Amino acid sequence: MKALVYHGPGQKAWEEVPDPVIIEPTDVIVRVETTTICGTDLHILKGDVPAVTDGRILGHEGVGTVTEVGPAVSSVAVGDRVIISCISACGACSYCHQGLYAHCLAKEGASGIGWIFGHLINGTQAELVRVPFADNSVYKVPAGVSDDAAVMLSDILPTGFEIGVRYGKVKPGDVVAVVGAGPVGLAAMMTANLYGAARIIALDLDANRLDQALTFGATDTVDSSAPDWEQRVRAMTDGMGVDVAIEAVGIPSTFEACTRIVRPGGSVANVGVHGAPVQLALQDLWIMDLSITMGLVSTSTTPMLLKLVAQHKLAAERFATHHFGFDQVLEAYDTFGRAAESKALKVVIRR
Amino acid sequence: MKALVYHGPGQKAWEEVPDPVIIEPTDVIVRVETTTICGTDLHILKGDVPAVTDGRILGHEGVGTVTEVGPAVSSVAVGDRVIISCISACGACSYCHQGLYAHCLAKEGASGIGWIFGHLINGTQAELVRVPFADNSVYKVPAGVSDDAAVMLSDILPTGFEIGVRYGKVKPGDVVAVVGAGPVGLAAMMTANLYGAARIIALDLDANRLDQALTFGATDTVDSSAPDWEQRVRAMTDGMGVDVAIEAVGIPSTFEACTRIVRPGGSVANVGVHGAPVQLALQDLWIMDLSITMGLVSTSTTPMLLKLVAQHKLAAERFATHHFGFDQVLEAYDTFGRAAESKALKVVIRR
Repeated sequence: MKALVYHGPGQKAWEEVPDPVIIEPTDVIVRVETTTICGTDLHILKGDVPAVTDGRILGHEGVGTVTEVGPAVSSVAVGDRVIISCISACGACSYCHQGLYAHCLAKEGASGIGWIFGHLINGTQAELVRVPFADNSVYKVPAGVSDDAAVMLSDILPTGFEIGVRYGKVKPGDVVAVVGAGPVGLAAMMTANLYGAARIIALDLDANRLDQALTFGATDTVDSSAPDWEQRVRAMTDGMGVDVAIEAVGIPSTFEACTRIVRPGGSVANVGVHGAPVQLALQDLWIMDLSITMGLVSTSTTPMLLKLVAQHKLAAERFATHHFGFDQVLEAYDTFGRAAESKALKVVIRR
Repeated sequence: MKALVYHGPGQKAWEEVPDPVIIEPTDVIVRVETTTICGTDLHILKGDVPAVTDGRILGHEGVGTVTEVGPAVSSVAVGDRVIISCISACGACSYCHQGLYAHCLAKEGASGIGWIFGHLINGTQAELVRVPFADNSVYKVPAGVSDDAAVMLSDILPTGFEIGVRYGKVKPGDVVAVVGAGPVGLAAMMTANLYGAARIIALDLDANRLDQALTFGATDTVDSSAPDWEQRVRAMTDGMGVDVAIEAVGIPSTFEACTRIVRPGGSVANVGVHGAPVQLALQDLWIMDLSITMGLVSTSTTPMLLKLVAQHKLAAERFATHHFGFDQVLEAYDTFGRAAESKALKVVIRR
């Protein structure tokens, strides 16, 4: 088969590799029909994730058809069309019992489990992929749900919802600020509406992304480069600050911004993947009755979100702004890497 | 009357001052029978709380008898024995409606509300005290509850419970670490048992405090100066870390200690009052599914805790290690200020 293979920082190739095979009885093989690229893939390509080594097939998002099933798999059969979750989980350990699949304690070969595709095992930017612990790691796609929509359930929609909206404890009537209007920030805006947010304020430096935010559920936008950005946000509240601030960038300044605009008793939900420590102004914040959360998606809400997508209550396919064939995967990376210019949200790569 | 008056950093005197009078119809006057000293009072005396100005009567904890009642007060009458809460609250604003009395939006004269005694208005280390918003700020003491027990409900018992145990989401079977075995840390240990914690690990530098911790609900102790303190804590869990880490000191190193010993999916509840920012290792923690909380007590749980004290389910009087008369208040401060030597937990000052 062909696959996108990582060959060290800055190096990747769409090349011929051996087909994957069933290794464990809980595995399935999926013929990938649709995949996409995550910001994390760009980090890997920069060399920021040293656990990813030369020869690894990239990608952790995908939709496809099951072609082979291990003898212990009971929930899917050959021919089923499935979403491949970015998180693999045994379903049996103490973390899985809590729904914290991201921290599954099972071992997949010599590696850990949780986020392993395109990281510790071969990923989904390939014609075929081996999926471990398939009973807890793939979801059948109902008829009527397009690949463009379904592939957003591999990662970004559950990430924005679980780590942004649910950890942020969004509740009816809340004013929610989302700092960063990239795909995951937009996913948080879209799903914050599920809990009846009164106002959803998108903050970003990019005017195009702010315009897009208004079509993904944001009610207001604030250019975060404006000198008075903080006052503008505060003016959209009762003056006390927002109920929930969702960080969807992953740098110290955006995290700090969230702690500045949140009201006493409010929540800061960090979704961004950080590469550096942040300073927490606990001398001012200790008295504020804040909750600050962070985490890796467990995709425990994928079935629920999929139901809403199937009912057309979440227009997940709207994230798919650009389409490429498998043999155009390098072009797809280029388009996604220049998102500010190309105005790409998610680039979809199809067979 | 006589009262302990602050006269700028390092300066205090037990001196004659005018009796307080009813100012607002929601006020009561309480004849203080028992008061105590908080670590915050020591901070004020160091000059760390500039809002406290020369001439302010100190103290925010007390038990006494109502001697005068404003015309709008309905819940207490002259002669009632009451606990004076460290938090004053109007009961009518949006924060009070959420039980977040610490952030009450009402104004008491020119000052704010919330923690105001011995801070923005005259406090409880006095023969008499004016209590604003009495209907929401004093609690009648049931017969059989001693002053030694009741005065612990002004601040430390609700602080340890609300900001440590409840914000930390302690649940049955949890392993809870409490970093800092001073009065508030001990209050967290005592009340963590209300939620069925499986194991409560006290951490402190002081061997005496660790010994005391075992009598306040801790099941295990760890000397936090030991080079292998972290491994010792981890060995008391399944190796993954504690479910809940409660910070009860208020310095960067103890906060950081909590983030190091907490397991994925766990909680860090900061109770300590901080004077400096802390570094949050978000590059390691973003993936950990942590909740980090902080706050000022609202004393919304005082009635519930008082019920358990009355049933002898919480031995609150055990915090009272030293007793002084009102005219010995300076000696009481000295004893409390040298707690490591004197082995004082709470010094009780009685009429």
